[in-house]
Amino acid sequence: MAVIALDLGGTKLAAALFSSPGDIVFKSHYALDKREGKEVGQLIANTTNEILNKAASINEKVDAIGLCVPGIAHAKTGTVWAPNIPEWYDYPLQEELQNSISNKNIKVKIDSDRACYILGEVWKGNARGCSDAIFLSVGTGIGAGILVNNEVLRGSNDIAGAIGWMGLDRPFKEKYISCGDFEYNASGEGIAKIAKEMMGDNKILLKKIVPKELSAKDVFDAYENGDELAKKIIRNSIECWGMAVANLVSLFNPEKIIFGGGVFGPALKFLDEIYKEAKKWAQPISIQQVKLEGSALGNDAGLYGAGWLAMKD
Amino acid sequence: MAVIALDLGGTKLAAALFSSPGDIVFKSHYALDKREGKEVGQLIANTTNEILNKAASINEKVDAIGLCVPGIAHAKTGTVWAPNIPEWYDYPLQEELQNSISNKNIKVKIDSDRACYILGEVWKGNARGCSDAIFLSVGTGIGAGILVNNEVLRGSNDIAGAIGWMGLDRPFKEKYISCGDFEYNASGEGIAKIAKEMMGDNKILLKKIVPKELSAKDVFDAYENGDELAKKIIRNSIECWGMAVANLVSLFNPEKIIFGGGVFGPALKFLDEIYKEAKKWAQPISIQQVKLEGSALGNDAGLYGAGWLAMKD
Repeated sequence: MAVIALDLGGTKLAAALFSSPGDIVFKSHYALDKREGKEVGQLIANTTNEILNKAASINEKVDAIGLCVPGIAHAKTGTVWAPNIPEWYDYPLQEELQNSISNKNIKVKIDSDRACYILGEVWKGNARGCSDAIFLSVGTGIGAGILVNNEVLRGSNDIAGAIGWMGLDRPFKEKYISCGDFEYNASGEGIAKIAKEMMGDNKILLKKIVPKELSAKDVFDAYENGDELAKKIIRNSIECWGMAVANLVSLFNPEKIIFGGGVFGPALKFLDEIYKEAKKWAQPISIQQVKLEGSALGNDAGLYGAGWLAMKD
Repeated sequence: MAVIALDLGGTKLAAALFSSPGDIVFKSHYALDKREGKEVGQLIANTTNEILNKAASINEKVDAIGLCVPGIAHAKTGTVWAPNIPEWYDYPLQEELQNSISNKNIKVKIDSDRACYILGEVWKGNARGCSDAIFLSVGTGIGAGILVNNEVLRGSNDIAGAIGWMGLDRPFKEKYISCGDFEYNASGEGIAKIAKEMMGDNKILLKKIVPKELSAKDVFDAYENGDELAKKIIRNSIECWGMAVANLVSLFNPEKIIFGGGVFGPALKFLDEIYKEAKKWAQPISIQQVKLEGSALGNDAGLYGAGWLAMKD
């Protein structure tokens, strides 16, 4: 049994053929090139059929297709909401892709990126052997893929895991309205925002005038060079990551929390400090049972998750 | 099919025989009377055998026994940790009760009080028909029974749902060490503590000198009588309950959150205000999909949950 895995991002599509032991037979990338709505659906269908032909030419029989999407996948309807793909509010991706394949016995399975990340880590990464584990994805935004008793937590309408909205700082402030308190303070965009707030009118980080388009990377670079303000900015994020870990641990009693996304990355070096902060807040027995680790799969977590989605059952 | 349900509290044992449609055939209560360790196990065994005899005398065949305990029930070992029962650190309750029954075909099932509360509401209360719902129990302490896709969330070592430890107020304060931030601010004991803090040296609530043993009930009574300080104390709790609801909604995307325990009770009148607070913080689509309701079963939620535990499968 072989499966096709597709990982759709906001700007590119990654695709791979997995053999049954979970090895990548071949892998390719396609830029979305400003495609919108149905054009993105068409790219996915064309890519899938290309890989099906290529698999047939090397006598690999494809049994299923797994697809990871940057948003919400509705299990009941097979439709997808993806904020970064224009016109994908309730896009009938499952039906469209299933119809585009000539062999109707090949099943198409779709799930959200955060669900795929934790599935990927369970299959081939740092959550192998876990029944209860969480992938905390910290990039531009923040989301969590949550594995409960070997199943991904979906919620009543498939939008569970929206941890960017977690409240950590009473009382409520207007600035949390667009993205939530945790994401405001500790996402990639959040770190840049907090940096701008803390710099005030000076706009100086590590004695350099900082450009308008200050990014989290600038803050991490300044931190590496010993900048005092950057230390404070990072300390603010560590406190938030630690509290989020604590709240996840008290609620879910997981075996592992896996950190991924662009920020982890450079923030992986702070895992011990994050644990130390979490230990203050969390249920005291549960916190001793959890391990914090970085993603083993990095940018391929979604692709592996899509592979496992297709492979399992 | 009939089942026996037992609900063990810190000071009493409730017991009932349920008929298969879920009606209570008879029900009784026993005070623990300062029993400790094995004496409590003996009371449970004796009560069970009494009910078995009584059931036999009216030709009701008992198929299973469900038992709700005030602490943690370890599914793999059948042992129980219950902080309010002296000597019950890792008590072999399952084995002991199973051995005390002459008919070995009657299966004994044990679960924590928070798990039983949500199961009770699913079976006969306000969570009927829900696959994803949460029971927020606010009494002396705070805990959550969490239903995910029709199963109770247990975690890797059966201590999921410890929501009293949820962090809501950065930075960490020493006073949260013994019970957690949320419980410190918004449990029954917490409301009394916050009241004492807010009163300072005056010790005056509603122009009355307040006794040393100030309780949450005193605060609710003063609120009813228009006391301004009591309003502030309750407002502090509403903010915490609202944030906790928001964090649960963003993470779990549940259909309902059911409020129970001694505090809800008098705090049920604030559900609209709690929802209003939660709406500020939570994932904006998810919060529109949840309903907040009081427990339909009140003090019997654990007993019904134990009944359903025995009845299901």
